[in-house]
Amino acid sequence: MTASAAIETVALEDRGLAVTWADGARFTFHPVWLRERAPSEETLDARTGQRKLEAAFLPRDLAVTEARREDEGAVAVGFSDGAAVRFDGRALRAALAPREQVDLVGVKQLWDGALGGFPCYDLAELKQGAPLLGLLDDLARLGCVLIEGVPPEKNGILEFMGLIGNIKLTNWGGVEDVKVDADAFDLTLTNRGLEPHVDNPYRFSTIGYVVLHCLANSFEGGESTIVDGFAVAERLRREDPEAFEALATTPVYFRYQDETTMLENLRSLIGLDSAGRVERVAWSNRTEFVDARPAAELERYYAARARFAELLYADAMTVTFKLQPGQAFILDNYRVLHGRRPFELAGGGNRHMRQGYFDRDMVSSRQKVLRRQYGG
Amino acid sequence: MTASAAIETVALEDRGLAVTWADGARFTFHPVWLRERAPSEETLDARTGQRKLEAAFLPRDLAVTEARREDEGAVAVGFSDGAAVRFDGRALRAALAPREQVDLVGVKQLWDGALGGFPCYDLAELKQGAPLLGLLDDLARLGCVLIEGVPPEKNGILEFMGLIGNIKLTNWGGVEDVKVDADAFDLTLTNRGLEPHVDNPYRFSTIGYVVLHCLANSFEGGESTIVDGFAVAERLRREDPEAFEALATTPVYFRYQDETTMLENLRSLIGLDSAGRVERVAWSNRTEFVDARPAAELERYYAARARFAELLYADAMTVTFKLQPGQAFILDNYRVLHGRRPFELAGGGNRHMRQGYFDRDMVSSRQKVLRRQYGG
Repeated sequence: MTASAAIETVALEDRGLAVTWADGARFTFHPVWLRERAPSEETLDARTGQRKLEAAFLPRDLAVTEARREDEGAVAVGFSDGAAVRFDGRALRAALAPREQVDLVGVKQLWDGALGGFPCYDLAELKQGAPLLGLLDDLARLGCVLIEGVPPEKNGILEFMGLIGNIKLTNWGGVEDVKVDADAFDLTLTNRGLEPHVDNPYRFSTIGYVVLHCLANSFEGGESTIVDGFAVAERLRREDPEAFEALATTPVYFRYQDETTMLENLRSLIGLDSAGRVERVAWSNRTEFVDARPAAELERYYAARARFAELLYADAMTVTFKLQPGQAFILDNYRVLHGRRPFELAGGGNRHMRQGYFDRDMVSSRQKVLRRQYGG
Repeated sequence: MTASAAIETVALEDRGLAVTWADGARFTFHPVWLRERAPSEETLDARTGQRKLEAAFLPRDLAVTEARREDEGAVAVGFSDGAAVRFDGRALRAALAPREQVDLVGVKQLWDGALGGFPCYDLAELKQGAPLLGLLDDLARLGCVLIEGVPPEKNGILEFMGLIGNIKLTNWGGVEDVKVDADAFDLTLTNRGLEPHVDNPYRFSTIGYVVLHCLANSFEGGESTIVDGFAVAERLRREDPEAFEALATTPVYFRYQDETTMLENLRSLIGLDSAGRVERVAWSNRTEFVDARPAAELERYYAARARFAELLYADAMTVTFKLQPGQAFILDNYRVLHGRRPFELAGGGNRHMRQGYFDRDMVSSRQKVLRRQYGG
């Protein structure tokens, strides 16, 4: 126990428990908040940690009636309903800290083209938990990681994906082709270049992570372009706060349709959380159509969008590399945009990618379980 | 063309196109908004409707330079970049209407226990598109629909689910058991009653629709309880606006963990859209723990939560029925809570349910494609 986490005094206050720590911190815990955490079989299931007691059924006038500091690390508490509980001082203190991320854990390192490239892991090594945790931590930090040694065959990516968890099935199925298709219902399946974009912002709710696997890439061109959407959004916020505001508040319509599918979503290009932090970037020129809004509003929106596009498409913000057969990457689709240079169909070459998706919970769950095992 | 949708005049205004309709409505369309919709091969892909031109690359001073009313249903427009486009008056007028739901389409009918039961469809009939559209429209309206004639065998529900689309795979896989399990990591897998709840609010992002299929239900008890969370939330808003506000603004922590999985999410019990409409209800007493917040805030939260619980658990708000082998239901997990009465393990009975999940886009896509085919 560090000095600052040592309990100094406990007292009854406002029907709750007031605790003072050695560093001067002080907090009064609500009686129901304490009571619904009682480690007894009637209150919490010992194995799952799930709550069996319904907090709403506790007496409305529940109170802490007794509190005794056992030592600097624990306090014994009695309640008006008869419950007697020993609380760990460290756990009480930890409860005061702002909550950790519920999504993938770790500090994000924003980057631009100077980053040059991304960390690369070999599939054979990822069968060990520690390298897999390294990959997921790098994914949390940078939003993109490369994998090599992935068999360049039809469903060769499934072994890698299985190390993380179950794939997301969409209207297209599981792992799907990205190659030239004369019957294309999406511009992805042509040889044209694709501006950086996120995948499927037209889904309610959208794709969490994109995995792209290279089976063949022997045409001239076809390099991958990767952009940190959060870095671009933060740069826009610094350089042109009004444009940032316009993109964070204007709802935009995204749509995909083919013969068997109709997907639509309405969202802002920049999504903020309740604290005003950038939480999501949505950019997909192909599938985006802003609604008819008053001309002055649209004038502001289009100017902001043009400034955003200029930054998103800038070479200085872009990391470019050519994916080789047997390589793959995994991308955070809430943060990172990907695109490709056009490629030439001439000659005897071939370009064949396969792609699969994960939900966000699948990836963050794996990281957190590995952290429990390997620390971090 | 109805009279109100008839174009009366067109004019150049603010670099855009001003249109007046016969009923007096008037709107000035921004030049870029019009230009990026030009039905030409350079601008839009004819087949997919996807945009090939990047709006950000259009001249910043783009203007409508010419506008001519062709007849009451069309206007011919010339742009400063040389594009010449004919716009349909009905489409322009439709663009002014508030956007349709991007999620499942239809007016919600809020209900309480007096509803008595839910529409029921036979699986054999659902292989026709029109009854399947009926089911999806009822799901949009009520949030719960029954299906019968579903083979009471292990993956017997997959045929029904396949009529809608691909199942959602979670950490538990696809279709999973809900039956008593001595090794249970979730209280669902016991014989205790379950208060009404939504499934997996601890996921980032959460389950869209729940399908529960009955293979056996011969124990005493085990009735299903279904509650319209939107009806309860709206009732709370009417009767106790302060409580409603507390539940819409207090972030609450949800968690599920077992040996291989760690899922967590932070969200309010009542989720509102940007217009203040109820968009989601999250209620799962087992897995919810509010963070340590100042006692006065928690006092307000617990009082509101107790009032919400009272309504959610009230018989008057609940539809109760016992699912029979070969029956299933599908639930909107953003809106409808489900639970079950406890059941007795005594005697030679058995209770065996199987459940699967859908993402929201899968269900709404199916409805919209069927509407395209069958109207509605």
